[in-house]
Amino acid sequence: MERAVQELSRLPGIGRRSALRLTLHLLRQGNERMENLATSIQDLARNSQFCENCHSISDVPVCSICNDSRRDDKSICVVEDIRDVLALENTHAFRGKYHVLGGLISPMDGLGPGDLTIDELVGKVEKKEIEEVIMALSSTMEGDTTAFYIYRKIGDSSIRLTSIARGLPIGDSLEYADEITLSRSIQQRVLFESTLSKE
Amino acid sequence: MERAVQELSRLPGIGRRSALRLTLHLLRQGNERMENLATSIQDLARNSQFCENCHSISDVPVCSICNDSRRDDKSICVVEDIRDVLALENTHAFRGKYHVLGGLISPMDGLGPGDLTIDELVGKVEKKEIEEVIMALSSTMEGDTTAFYIYRKIGDSSIRLTSIARGLPIGDSLEYADEITLSRSIQQRVLFESTLSKE
Repeated sequence: MERAVQELSRLPGIGRRSALRLTLHLLRQGNERMENLATSIQDLARNSQFCENCHSISDVPVCSICNDSRRDDKSICVVEDIRDVLALENTHAFRGKYHVLGGLISPMDGLGPGDLTIDELVGKVEKKEIEEVIMALSSTMEGDTTAFYIYRKIGDSSIRLTSIARGLPIGDSLEYADEITLSRSIQQRVLFESTLSKE
Repeated sequence: MERAVQELSRLPGIGRRSALRLTLHLLRQGNERMENLATSIQDLARNSQFCENCHSISDVPVCSICNDSRRDDKSICVVEDIRDVLALENTHAFRGKYHVLGGLISPMDGLGPGDLTIDELVGKVEKKEIEEVIMALSSTMEGDTTAFYIYRKIGDSSIRLTSIARGLPIGDSLEYADEITLSRSIQQRVLFESTLSKE
């Protein structure tokens, strides 16, 4: 039991007390539930891998999105991790493919460009099979740094390098917008007609 | 004193109790302070007017922004009220002129197109002295309705009709973006290089 408590308390957000509570809860639930949980975690460990194309997490060597022939191969959306893939898939707004960096450049956390799949992205661009690379990175210090690093690597190539739009969130009043977002949203204004399609 | 309490309690957010407290506070402050307050409100009533060009609040018939010859006459930013003018001026990102609607179309509040300065805007566009009309309206039901109404009125003219960008606010993580904003921000993506100028 002590070992279970110790292993559980290593999970993020779970201290020793919570780990103990979880362990007691598992014991009360009976053997079958515990076996199920153990097996599911074992399966996760044994079967999960990174898609060899987009580096997203996948059960098979090439993930279902990369394998989908109805999706546009020529348009690649660069994201930080698989959560962003899921968020973008939920919007149904993007029908191209993804490239998962596996993090953002963050010297504070000891993450450099070499820890990410940037070289693989550059490789894809150099093969010249891509027409557009869309950077869908967070608008944070780390996101901006990573985007700029990628820009310096592939900005000179003939592909169209774009970024998701920054501006006022849908549903928000101008009144509550911060100055930088407001400033950006007027600099990067768009043709009004282009806003009508998917209202 | 009863009249002062009554008048004060008509202000937004001030009930009878607060009005009484304010009145007693004024009495304690002495005559001079009361005279000053009264005069400032009188001046406000007598001297404030709407700029005859942009319909913003102004001390003079034509406001300082409209009178500024260094600003671009050919680019007009359409906003709801003077607060938006102040917010946009704070960003220093816009060097054209404004057109203040004086509200947004809101049937719930009994505000129709006729209550706003939309006809005046259409008049300016018809004079053909403008090249671009930028809609900087809130991304709310009322803001969208008003923008669409204006679009139907002047969308056919030769001016460039634009809207401020909608998307992820600067500084925000992709993870926390709502689905509609995320969807919009990938549909309306921009060339990466265009994001570099004013970082």
